[in-house]
Amino acid sequence: MHFTSEPRLDDGVLERPFALGEIPGLLWTPASSSASAPAPLVLLGHPPLGLPRMYPRLAARARHAAAEGFASATIELPGSGERPRWAAADQARADLRRAMEAGEPVGDEIIDALILPLVEKSVPEWRAALDALLALPEIGGPVVYSGGVISIGVRLAVVEPRIVAASLFAGSFIPRAILEEARQVTIPLHVLLQWDDEGNDRQAALDLFDAFGSKEKTLHANMGGHTGVPQFAGEDAARFFARHLK
Amino acid sequence: MHFTSEPRLDDGVLERPFALGEIPGLLWTPASSSASAPAPLVLLGHPPLGLPRMYPRLAARARHAAAEGFASATIELPGSGERPRWAAADQARADLRRAMEAGEPVGDEIIDALILPLVEKSVPEWRAALDALLALPEIGGPVVYSGGVISIGVRLAVVEPRIVAASLFAGSFIPRAILEEARQVTIPLHVLLQWDDEGNDRQAALDLFDAFGSKEKTLHANMGGHTGVPQFAGEDAARFFARHLK
Repeated sequence: MHFTSEPRLDDGVLERPFALGEIPGLLWTPASSSASAPAPLVLLGHPPLGLPRMYPRLAARARHAAAEGFASATIELPGSGERPRWAAADQARADLRRAMEAGEPVGDEIIDALILPLVEKSVPEWRAALDALLALPEIGGPVVYSGGVISIGVRLAVVEPRIVAASLFAGSFIPRAILEEARQVTIPLHVLLQWDDEGNDRQAALDLFDAFGSKEKTLHANMGGHTGVPQFAGEDAARFFARHLK
Repeated sequence: MHFTSEPRLDDGVLERPFALGEIPGLLWTPASSSASAPAPLVLLGHPPLGLPRMYPRLAARARHAAAEGFASATIELPGSGERPRWAAADQARADLRRAMEAGEPVGDEIIDALILPLVEKSVPEWRAALDALLALPEIGGPVVYSGGVISIGVRLAVVEPRIVAASLFAGSFIPRAILEEARQVTIPLHVLLQWDDEGNDRQAALDLFDAFGSKEKTLHANMGGHTGVPQFAGEDAARFFARHLK
């Protein structure tokens, strides 16, 4: 991991672009963090739309985390942003678009092709990023995962013991295999569901919430459509982190 | 309405038992409320177990409300506590117990017989209590309803324009007629559902949440069983009130 351009200090938050091999990433640390006071870490999950397009929302979430004293970091997903295109993923997205435009139900084959390779490829990358981030003196534990793609969050919660809690956004399709995997999750969970998100399968999200093995799990459902998460819901999620990171 | 015994001042909260005709009730006001600074009002809903048995939980909720500067009040439900027994309600409860002990599904007839008369009788009483409470100089608007029986909260939200928001506990059976009525509710709602509440019908609660016509509606589902609402869930509900009462 190396930092790829000048750090930017904005409102007490240090933003540092980095590269992990060929994977671009961003790290935000509060001015208060140091080797003697390392900050807990929030991994900022996001949909495969590319970091440049997601940047404003990610930076806003990072600023909120920093205000609580938490560092946060994200990496580009495989096939997104400036990373090499990925023919199978493009094909799966085209199949999904076609099914939705035709008003057809989105079959399990399309969902599996869309999500499972993304989970398989990105989870080891997130873990490698975690190794590199936790090696920095100003970053300590504990670590939480926040956001989408929810299936990536599920897999990380199962395989990565350094993640102590996760706040997951139920805003994407969920493969049956991930539903099964969810039974192995035991960390505290906060699941956000936009009830009227028409591009999403509400019942699958409820089934996933039900499947989680965690003793502490909370579902917050709100109105406002896919991108219309109310401000108070974001604040609830932030309080969930604070409970588990402080 | 008249106060029936000496007020008790405890930790800055004035507790005053009252009677509305033959209906016993309790009013809590923060020491800060006065004719020149009237407090917003929280109506504390509760299951039909009788005020004496519910008192510790109600008083705790009232103290939390008072800490935010809100008055709160509750009345005894018909057929409960020291109010005259009510043969039809006793019969409906016996039928419910029998069905549950036999492991049979609880039919719509039992649910209707259990809940609908309670709604029909108690909602006019809550409204009469509201008339009397709002006539006190130290109580002002706005008013919210909080708690169960959820069907009572639904009916009140439809018929009582002075209630500006409601925090409802999805912890009791829901008649089909109430599900229909929910479409007419338009005030902001905060619905609490104990996901693993085995005495409750989770799907009916989700259907009810879906049916509400409100543009702002939030569902918080948690683990912990019927009476095991986590402390943080109570705090979330308190913040919902604060948003709509302040």
